[in-house]
Amino acid sequence: MRFSFPLMALGLEVAMIVLFGLFAEYETSWYDYQPNTTQITESERFFQLYPLFQDVHVMIFVGFGFLMTFLKKYGFSGVGINLFVAALGLQWGIIIQGILHSHGEKIQIGIKNIINADFSTATVLISFGAVLGKTSPIQMLIMTILEIAAFAGNEYLVGEIFQATDIGASMTIHTFGAYFGLAVAGILYRSGLRKGHRNEESTYYSDMFAMIGTIFLWIFWPSFNSAIAEPGEEQNRAIVNTYFSLAACVLTAFALSSLVTHGGKLNMVHIQNATLAGGVAVGTCADMDISPYVAMIIGSIAGVVSVLGYKFLTPCFAAKLRIHDTCGVHNLHGLPGVIGGLASIVAIVMGKSKKSTIAMQAAALGSSIGTAIVGGILTGPSRERI
Amino acid sequence: MRFSFPLMALGLEVAMIVLFGLFAEYETSWYDYQPNTTQITESERFFQLYPLFQDVHVMIFVGFGFLMTFLKKYGFSGVGINLFVAALGLQWGIIIQGILHSHGEKIQIGIKNIINADFSTATVLISFGAVLGKTSPIQMLIMTILEIAAFAGNEYLVGEIFQATDIGASMTIHTFGAYFGLAVAGILYRSGLRKGHRNEESTYYSDMFAMIGTIFLWIFWPSFNSAIAEPGEEQNRAIVNTYFSLAACVLTAFALSSLVTHGGKLNMVHIQNATLAGGVAVGTCADMDISPYVAMIIGSIAGVVSVLGYKFLTPCFAAKLRIHDTCGVHNLHGLPGVIGGLASIVAIVMGKSKKSTIAMQAAALGSSIGTAIVGGILTGPSRERI
Amino acid sequence: MRFSFPLMALGLEVAMIVLFGLFAEYETSWYDYQPNTTQITESERFFQLYPLFQDVHVMIFVGFGFLMTFLKKYGFSGVGINLFVAALGLQWGIIIQGILHSHGEKIQIGIKNIINADFSTATVLISFGAVLGKTSPIQMLIMTILEIAAFAGNEYLVGEIFQATDIGASMTIHTFGAYFGLAVAGILYRSGLRKGHRNEESTYYSDMFAMIGTIFLWIFWPSFNSAIAEPGEEQNRAIVNTYFSLAACVLTAFALSSLVTHGGKLNMVHIQNATLAGGVAVGTCADMDISPYVAMIIGSIAGVVSVLGYKFLTPCFAAKLRIHDTCGVHNLHGLPGVIGGLASIVAIVMGKSKKSTIAMQAAALGSSIGTAIVGGILTGPSRERI
Repeated sequence: MRFSFPLMALGLEVAMIVLFGLFAEYETSWYDYQPNTTQITESERFFQLYPLFQDVHVMIFVGFGFLMTFLKKYGFSGVGINLFVAALGLQWGIIIQGILHSHGEKIQIGIKNIINADFSTATVLISFGAVLGKTSPIQMLIMTILEIAAFAGNEYLVGEIFQATDIGASMTIHTFGAYFGLAVAGILYRSGLRKGHRNEESTYYSDMFAMIGTIFLWIFWPSFNSAIAEPGEEQNRAIVNTYFSLAACVLTAFALSSLVTHGGKLNMVHIQNATLAGGVAVGTCADMDISPYVAMIIGSIAGVVSVLGYKFLTPCFAAKLRIHDTCGVHNLHGLPGVIGGLASIVAIVMGKSKKSTIAMQAAALGSSIGTAIVGGILTGPSRERI
Repeated sequence: MRFSFPLMALGLEVAMIVLFGLFAEYETSWYDYQPNTTQITESERFFQLYPLFQDVHVMIFVGFGFLMTFLKKYGFSGVGINLFVAALGLQWGIIIQGILHSHGEKIQIGIKNIINADFSTATVLISFGAVLGKTSPIQMLIMTILEIAAFAGNEYLVGEIFQATDIGASMTIHTFGAYFGLAVAGILYRSGLRKGHRNEESTYYSDMFAMIGTIFLWIFWPSFNSAIAEPGEEQNRAIVNTYFSLAACVLTAFALSSLVTHGGKLNMVHIQNATLAGGVAVGTCADMDISPYVAMIIGSIAGVVSVLGYKFLTPCFAAKLRIHDTCGVHNLHGLPGVIGGLASIVAIVMGKSKKSTIAMQAAALGSSIGTAIVGGILTGPSRERI
Repeated sequence: MRFSFPLMALGLEVAMIVLFGLFAEYETSWYDYQPNTTQITESERFFQLYPLFQDVHVMIFVGFGFLMTFLKKYGFSGVGINLFVAALGLQWGIIIQGILHSHGEKIQIGIKNIINADFSTATVLISFGAVLGKTSPIQMLIMTILEIAAFAGNEYLVGEIFQATDIGASMTIHTFGAYFGLAVAGILYRSGLRKGHRNEESTYYSDMFAMIGTIFLWIFWPSFNSAIAEPGEEQNRAIVNTYFSLAACVLTAFALSSLVTHGGKLNMVHIQNATLAGGVAVGTCADMDISPYVAMIIGSIAGVVSVLGYKFLTPCFAAKLRIHDTCGVHNLHGLPGVIGGLASIVAIVMGKSKKSTIAMQAAALGSSIGTAIVGGILTGPSRERI
């Protein structure tokens, strides 16, 4: 028992090295690099995307990491385990996504893979928010491996089979990660909860550290929603729409927080989380020609729904469904992700995008929720046994 | 009263959505995007500027936000209200700047607008520093709307009518924001001060959080001063000059802080603020051909003046003028902004720039101070009534 | 005595201004800027590198700064003196590197110089980690001047005379900075240690602040190792290799930390530091065609060695060699830098790079260690006298 975690971590790293040795190589299009061509070269595209990658990287390691430091006794766990999970997840994400997409060829590793690898870790980090304080490092390690495999499978289904569109991954990352985490939290309910309750408080300073996470997530969300968009107007729109959706969301989240909090005060949990719901909700249709004001409407709705979720739904989940959602990921990622999927259906009905159909978007949303819940339920017990 | 803030915030967001629906659309030059042209395309320029935008974005939300967390009881207010004010301000800034500059056409929203929208929020955040601890969220909301309107008017006057040059906005943002805030602080003196005094202390950890703000502002200031400069050598110079001005400023600020502090120690308030004065002071002539050593001279002077301001001027303002400047914005933004304006006049006299004339630069400086003071005085009482 | 620090700081800033006035000018290739050329122009290259520069800038000022805040009483010193040292060091680095490389011409200041200036400050900041809590600001000021001169001399020897390759500066920055700091710490042992011991504790919150430094260093290390690489595939590889080396290093560092810590727990010092060793160790061969899995092997080894160094070597250094290494820079920078140098020799043996020879790489490693130790010993006593 004493050596389970270190040996598993070392064993997994050895396995990753073997997998990379067998299946991965540098992107070879670099060898065709022509310094004098008139088109945008691979090299230039690399440098266009590299800052967006670094923004996403900050979101994953600073944003998610510090957002989870709000509990007074789990600050170091929050940011430390976040680092561990993401470092493991990105290696595994490259392999599992690469194998699904490379059709038997070697995986060509370039800027797009490492962006997607960072994305795939986000699902686990979202689920981690639901189970924070209830799990050991070894349980997180197992969850990372299983959840990223399930995520990659669902993403392949959504993108390649359904040919649905989900540029900011509202459904495939946010909704998926939230419902996976909720399913695991439901399984873990009996054993871990009472202990979790005792430490379920924040302090003044732990709340300040959490705001570091909030603010960096808020700032760089436009890069998250646009990093893998088509260059040109679509990528531009993804940035602009996310910028405005987030700004609108802040106003409605502050307003609703004051409305539902005793004495009209602001609730720190709402400010830390619901202000970000606009980034999630605009994700699926971020690159569509929806107009900035529609992005603001989506963000406004997400801010309202997210605060109401924290106020009314999370306590209800804990009491009635016996699902204890530590960070309230259902309100920040689950519901806003569903809003994102529904918004894309409305946008397609209104003729704002021809990239997908109503049926395929609905299938993508259903698949993301369904795979997540089944995956989470199957993952939960395996973590109990250790 | 209990519902004033949430209803005003929701009402303003609805108003913003209506204004964006009526007046804003995506930048349409994207539709002419030609992947094979030999010139730098709009798409490439977008990606050149996007990292600079994100740097400015970090300054606004992390930099200004955490810089204001130094008071032991206002940490959460500092970073939280900062987020709210900036999220509202950027939407309103787009509209008001767009209407002034678009000559009746629809506002074309691209990378330049969102950079300028972030800039326009900076004025309010600077003024917020003067009144921190003395205002309610609803007062900040009103100040945001009024100050950004006044800012946009003055900026139009300076840029379009006077045709003055102020690339890093030393006059139009920093000086303007500082004097606007001071005027409001003067109006608010009677009611708010005694309460403010009791909590006017920092703690070890609140000072550390404030350093997060300081350091991120310091790092990304070259992006602030160069984001809207002409591409090529001017933008390059704006970056290089700001980099050196800030470095020089750190040395003189540390030296002066040790000189004027009991026992030769360093004063945390000086380190948190005066080290940034070089970024403000070099702003107006950042893109001029002034030579790096002149940028260092400007930064050195700013560091000295800023520390002396904190030591001697701020207490004097509070005692004699009955203006209580919580964060000392007069020393970080007010005086260094004036130095910036004066430096541009010297640079023009020395033949370093033909972009403007002495008279127009002087008019710009005068207009920025005058509009700010009048605007602040008119805004102050309206905030009292609520 | 009371005025030594401020007068020296002011005097040095005046000296820097004079040196810049005499020797520095803006990069003039900008005057040849042709907007219609088909090649990547200087302007485009500037914007490709500027985000990487800003990443390095964040590492220097936020990363190194906050990493040194883990001691309960030196948080403000850590981040404050870090700012002072880096602001002085970057000005001096420009001059000393410029004089060595410009062959009597004026120093042309562009993006590459300011990246290299930031790099040169890293050596002093690494050494600062070894002497943290044992030195006054004035001692740091002298060390900055002397160490950067020694660094620039060694770097010239390694790069120009030996023509060795060290793209991520594992040897010339990390190993050099660590051994320079250790030599100084050895000289300072008698006087400073007992006092240092009393305050040599971290608190919950000081450890959280240090994690801010860790995470930002971890995130942006790919930019550090690639910023001055050849554009195209080499720069791409430097990014990809560093990304994977760091990820692998996190797993082995967590595993070893749990293995060597009582009760299988994680040790915060290991997590804060050893997780970064992979970035150091992969530096020298980051741009070589070594394959991603080899980068992961290098990172894995670095994580193991670094934790073992903290556990066994640092206490031994303090007890036997009378060298007290406050932050354990030998384990984060010294040993991993040596691993980096050795890895480059293995890579050359395996035919992965023709940029250098075994002998020249060995000479570079020896020169970096030797110059550092001699320089540190010569610097140490001069700091005692003040």
